[in-house]
Amino acid sequence: MPVHSEQLQYRTRGAGSVIDLTPRVSQVVRESGATSGIATVFVPGATAAVTAMEHEQGNVSDLRELLDRLIPPDGTYEHNRLNHDTNAHAHIRAALLGPSETFPIEAGRLLLGTWQQIVLVDFDDRPRERTVIVNVVS
Amino acid sequence: MPVHSEQLQYRTRGAGSVIDLTPRVSQVVRESGATSGIATVFVPGATAAVTAMEHEQGNVSDLRELLDRLIPPDGTYEHNRLNHDTNAHAHIRAALLGPSETFPIEAGRLLLGTWQQIVLVDFDDRPRERTVIVNVVS
Amino acid sequence: MPVHSEQLQYRTRGAGSVIDLTPRVSQVVRESGATSGIATVFVPGATAAVTAMEHEQGNVSDLRELLDRLIPPDGTYEHNRLNHDTNAHAHIRAALLGPSETFPIEAGRLLLGTWQQIVLVDFDDRPRERTVIVNVVS
Repeated sequence: MPVHSEQLQYRTRGAGSVIDLTPRVSQVVRESGATSGIATVFVPGATAAVTAMEHEQGNVSDLRELLDRLIPPDGTYEHNRLNHDTNAHAHIRAALLGPSETFPIEAGRLLLGTWQQIVLVDFDDRPRERTVIVNVVS
Repeated sequence: MPVHSEQLQYRTRGAGSVIDLTPRVSQVVRESGATSGIATVFVPGATAAVTAMEHEQGNVSDLRELLDRLIPPDGTYEHNRLNHDTNAHAHIRAALLGPSETFPIEAGRLLLGTWQQIVLVDFDDRPRERTVIVNVVS
Repeated sequence: MPVHSEQLQYRTRGAGSVIDLTPRVSQVVRESGATSGIATVFVPGATAAVTAMEHEQGNVSDLRELLDRLIPPDGTYEHNRLNHDTNAHAHIRAALLGPSETFPIEAGRLLLGTWQQIVLVDFDDRPRERTVIVNVVS
């Protein structure tokens, strides 16, 4: 069985909230039985992203502040104007960070740094139900 | 056959143009015969990037405006000065977004969000012929 | 042997230094014996990132200048305040760029652009010993 796939469900508050995916991605890796390989973590949807960071209150706050400064929710955006929408900032933030990251598996475990977690960042301007897809190739 | 690979050709206008790769990447996935797995999409070249977004006129315009604001083409850059070049902004935009993303395949199809497309962003300051490489692992 | 994995060691000077990983990643690909497939390059740790760029003095300087401008080391950050730390800027830069990229392998070689290299960017504010993990799936 070269590829093992699972879909994880999360409820987010949107608005740049950062959710630690590591516990459940680690569980998928364990259940896959993979000893050595890779795990790709992907979020469907055009207003959320997957990356890695230390999931600590200060870092989460700093990332949100940075993105509010560089790509403000209340800026002037063509997407909002053309579609009578309000989440244009979420679209371009998500495009910048990207929807996927791929992580190594060794000895049956994710090889992450000590203070490094896999995270979902939901940029949409309202609470969302998100599916995160984990594919283990081994 | 664990890995199926195809090279796709595109002509771009450069200058931050955004090209929807989804139809042809989907075709590669179908032709690979993969039912479950991953598809990695990669662009060779140091002045283009692969990401995902809703390929809609407003979002495309907003992404270009954002990058023109944060990383202006007419800024002062060492790359341009040292190499008598004009596309330094394209180099650092591409490094920021990255050349690859990896997408899940389930039931023989790419698992994308409803309004999420796989895109090539060409930051170079002139039209380019680009090759995009798709690797399906299943 | 579907997955071949190697761990590479690097000493960096931190502070946004950019290290060309291509020679040693190419060597891992050769030693893997893979003819067609993908190579995922990942850095453990929350203050470094993997991307691709032309590893040229001007581009390296421009990338550092850009990030110093957008995410200054001496900005006001919650991570620094809460943890009596000094590298908050490194954390959010790393989250923005991401820890992994995946590259295609064809005819036993990495398919990179002529002026495209795989790089490690170390944002931490001190010299670090870094491990980079390469997984070849073929």
